[in-house]
Amino acid sequence: MTEFLSDIEIAQQAEMAYIDEVVKKIGLTRDNIELFGNYKAKIDVDSLVDKEAKGKLILVTAITPTPAGEGKTTTVVGLGDGLNKIGKKAIVALREPSLGPVFGMKGGAAGGGYAQVVPMEDINLHFTGDFHAIGAANNLLAAMLDNHIHQGNELQIDVNRITWKRCMDMNDRQLRQVVDGLGPKVNGVPREDGFEITVASEIMAILCLATDLNDLKTRLENIIVAYTIKNEPVTAGEIKAAGAMTALLKEAIKPNIVQTLEHNPAIIHGGPFANIAHGCNSVIATQTALKLSDYVVTEAGFGADLGAEKFLDIKCRQANLQPDAVVVVGTIRALKMHGGLAKSELGNEDLGALKAGLPNLLKHVSNMTDVYHLPTVVALNKFPTDTEAEVNLVIDECAKLGVEVILSDVWAKGGAGATELAEKVVALTEQANKDFRFAYEEELSIEDKILTLTKRIYGGSAVNYSKAAKQQLINLTELGFANLPICMAKTQYSFSDDPSLIGAPTDFEIEVTKLKVSAGAGFIVVYTGDVMTMPGLPKVPAANNISVNEKGQITGLF
Amino acid sequence: MTEFLSDIEIAQQAEMAYIDEVVKKIGLTRDNIELFGNYKAKIDVDSLVDKEAKGKLILVTAITPTPAGEGKTTTVVGLGDGLNKIGKKAIVALREPSLGPVFGMKGGAAGGGYAQVVPMEDINLHFTGDFHAIGAANNLLAAMLDNHIHQGNELQIDVNRITWKRCMDMNDRQLRQVVDGLGPKVNGVPREDGFEITVASEIMAILCLATDLNDLKTRLENIIVAYTIKNEPVTAGEIKAAGAMTALLKEAIKPNIVQTLEHNPAIIHGGPFANIAHGCNSVIATQTALKLSDYVVTEAGFGADLGAEKFLDIKCRQANLQPDAVVVVGTIRALKMHGGLAKSELGNEDLGALKAGLPNLLKHVSNMTDVYHLPTVVALNKFPTDTEAEVNLVIDECAKLGVEVILSDVWAKGGAGATELAEKVVALTEQANKDFRFAYEEELSIEDKILTLTKRIYGGSAVNYSKAAKQQLINLTELGFANLPICMAKTQYSFSDDPSLIGAPTDFEIEVTKLKVSAGAGFIVVYTGDVMTMPGLPKVPAANNISVNEKGQITGLF
Repeated sequence: MTEFLSDIEIAQQAEMAYIDEVVKKIGLTRDNIELFGNYKAKIDVDSLVDKEAKGKLILVTAITPTPAGEGKTTTVVGLGDGLNKIGKKAIVALREPSLGPVFGMKGGAAGGGYAQVVPMEDINLHFTGDFHAIGAANNLLAAMLDNHIHQGNELQIDVNRITWKRCMDMNDRQLRQVVDGLGPKVNGVPREDGFEITVASEIMAILCLATDLNDLKTRLENIIVAYTIKNEPVTAGEIKAAGAMTALLKEAIKPNIVQTLEHNPAIIHGGPFANIAHGCNSVIATQTALKLSDYVVTEAGFGADLGAEKFLDIKCRQANLQPDAVVVVGTIRALKMHGGLAKSELGNEDLGALKAGLPNLLKHVSNMTDVYHLPTVVALNKFPTDTEAEVNLVIDECAKLGVEVILSDVWAKGGAGATELAEKVVALTEQANKDFRFAYEEELSIEDKILTLTKRIYGGSAVNYSKAAKQQLINLTELGFANLPICMAKTQYSFSDDPSLIGAPTDFEIEVTKLKVSAGAGFIVVYTGDVMTMPGLPKVPAANNISVNEKGQITGLF
Repeated sequence: MTEFLSDIEIAQQAEMAYIDEVVKKIGLTRDNIELFGNYKAKIDVDSLVDKEAKGKLILVTAITPTPAGEGKTTTVVGLGDGLNKIGKKAIVALREPSLGPVFGMKGGAAGGGYAQVVPMEDINLHFTGDFHAIGAANNLLAAMLDNHIHQGNELQIDVNRITWKRCMDMNDRQLRQVVDGLGPKVNGVPREDGFEITVASEIMAILCLATDLNDLKTRLENIIVAYTIKNEPVTAGEIKAAGAMTALLKEAIKPNIVQTLEHNPAIIHGGPFANIAHGCNSVIATQTALKLSDYVVTEAGFGADLGAEKFLDIKCRQANLQPDAVVVVGTIRALKMHGGLAKSELGNEDLGALKAGLPNLLKHVSNMTDVYHLPTVVALNKFPTDTEAEVNLVIDECAKLGVEVILSDVWAKGGAGATELAEKVVALTEQANKDFRFAYEEELSIEDKILTLTKRIYGGSAVNYSKAAKQQLINLTELGFANLPICMAKTQYSFSDDPSLIGAPTDFEIEVTKLKVSAGAGFIVVYTGDVMTMPGLPKVPAANNISVNEKGQITGLF
């Protein structure tokens, strides 16, 4: 067995097929793609305009994340390969990883073990340049905004109420809070400012929700970058930046296609934050995948309370999509952590801890079945330390909700470790499913939407607002944004807004500190406490150990 | 005639050939390249390791730039096409344009008229992502440096003596001077800082001087990022950033290949500033071109006093290259501006102004022939307003130096407008040329090198040093850098350091304000006054008019 190889070793030892060969499996020729080297390509979506998006859509989501890891992306890749293994035509549709964090903590974002997408180094570094393009568009808007002020400020922008930040795809805490425009007058107007990591830019969310280049441009025009001294919003359209930003994003909007280790096509496109944004790959990628395949396996960020909720209530609502089945991923180990064990205590059977942690899984599952009315299965990623009694406990508890549990072993076995899961998913998608509904209706007031999510999805009891948030509720309603869906910026480590409340807490209250409209993306961001949008590097960054060997191969990356 | 079409219209109307077809002309197959879509590729230089670099190298340089324009890049492209037209195997080797300035002033950097390289929109925007990779490597180093300080500052870096800046490929004056690391302690250590445009990063110069990936890594290790409180230099190697930076630059180091409007292959790779850096395309690109073709036409930045001087004294010295011929580009219009006319006065014959401006051309030409001992020809780009008497005056004056003048008409006619120039260049390269020498020897002291250039190349009489510069001379000599070549950061608008001294001034003195070592690139930058390394946007930025039309084509770009 090769189970002791690292992810990058497995990936580098893999024999990749040429991507123009791989795409033949889904009926594409070189005329439908633009190659980026031999193993990456962009899909020319214009060439597919007449195709119908009629594949089945499978959403993979997860329990509340713990330090034990749940293996969501790995399950998506393994399930995609598993579906192909049982003779179905399937594609995975994943998020693109962010460059910056690669140099911070060790850890890839392209699956793991024998369920990976390759070339993993490229995917984790520059890939096809999409995020660089998003950064350039973001920073062009910032430069044009400050230039407008410097050149006379015709729009009467209040320099204390600029909401648009510059960005960089790097973990760089030094840029979180800055004063810029210093020095002589030719250096601009001094003001407080700050940088976000590129994936946190509203442009990332916009790119992932846009249906085509025209929609992209309209959404870019709608971005609110500042308020005037008369308290009126100033948009990117008024700054005259949207056209040039669209030009910068013209290629980035095209979905990327690579392959799994088993040479099945994999679409990877877009990667917005899952707290201040909706955390899913692009609508264009999902729609393209549904045109090209009978089954499309996709993922949502964080646990199902954030990721799946936003996938359903924001992405599916805006793009008129509906999943045919949901897979909730968990592990015995992670559930035992939700039951109170430390990471060092997970090696032994502990039915008590598992029982205490299981409500986390059950709450996520019942949200899928009872709130959204979606056919659901639990995928339990196998670990050598799992005992039969533990597995049976999970199976029994889920059975009470009418939901089946399938063991999967994709890390070690790839698609072969997910054939049973694949069969079950196919069966679920064949159930009649006319019953899908959102967790809330758009027409509700902003407060009612927040309260609905708090009660129905999180299991909380009430919502409190800071003074600033109360005023922002009034302002955003007056500006006509009350009918937008909401995007909760909440800790991913708990159903509540308190990361220490693991498991499935109840009777808690959510504290809303701030609200902000992402008018281009088309949602209202609801902040519960501070959200870090620019990470820092740890004391020993992963970058210290990354290099290139004499063969020109990258080493030390995961 | 289509002479009223804009550059982008000509470029967009061109029928491009697939790049994998174009490269067949120089003996490459798909195995030697990595495609970036259908019209761009990177060359796999490892696959050419056994080939000898035996082509003839032709340097195109120019008179001192004026607002009338001289058409240097256009001449390179036209001459390359002209050489192909007369049956020679030729490639052009150009610099990559910078993204940021595209949104400032209108004006492309991929040739013009019928002497362009295409796809011009791609080349002027993200191209193959090289500059984004350079930006990421630059900013990773900055983040790791500040993280080192934040995490305890083991190397005892003096936060007031950090020389490494962050960068962005954008004209953004707001970032020239900032204070970062503000806010709570987790946001880093507050300090004064600033951003440069990406092309000004030392990493750009390094990428363009590196001979391979190992040399790149060594040069990155040598970058000096700061000084300690004990006044010792701190390098990128000590920050442990060089390996990860190399990983980020692994693809960017490969030369890009595109095509001219006449379907001849064109290599475009790297584009360092021509003041604080050496202003030439990459050594790897030039060496690759010399392996693949009998004639390689390349360019240097600004006028010959800066561009050609650095091409010869820095790039050729480091890479053991030697041009076989030099083309000095000028126009009658520009020479009349050097003779004192305003741009609005160039429409009529004015032999007096031309005669007054001609010494600028003659000084550049005699520098090439008398200082460097290189076979030289003058290419005079034709304009409809040029009169026969004016042309004859230029021919006669150059003849006194033994140098021929060839009229070229590449903007309107492409390669057909440069066949006579091509024939002449071929003849020049066949002259025995064992006599090439540098303008100065490396072994001279830093002061003597500066004085030598001032006297021999610029025509000045003396060099004065600020107090700070005097101290830096001592420090850099003590640190062992005195034997490096020097890189003059001087205005491009005059032989002197005063942009108002047009023509060919004499008896002036150069004022050195500052010296700085670029230890990775391998030269000492000599500042004469302030050099702007972060441009700003004008009152009406070009970006205002850039957009994407319904066919998905970029509009308003040049």
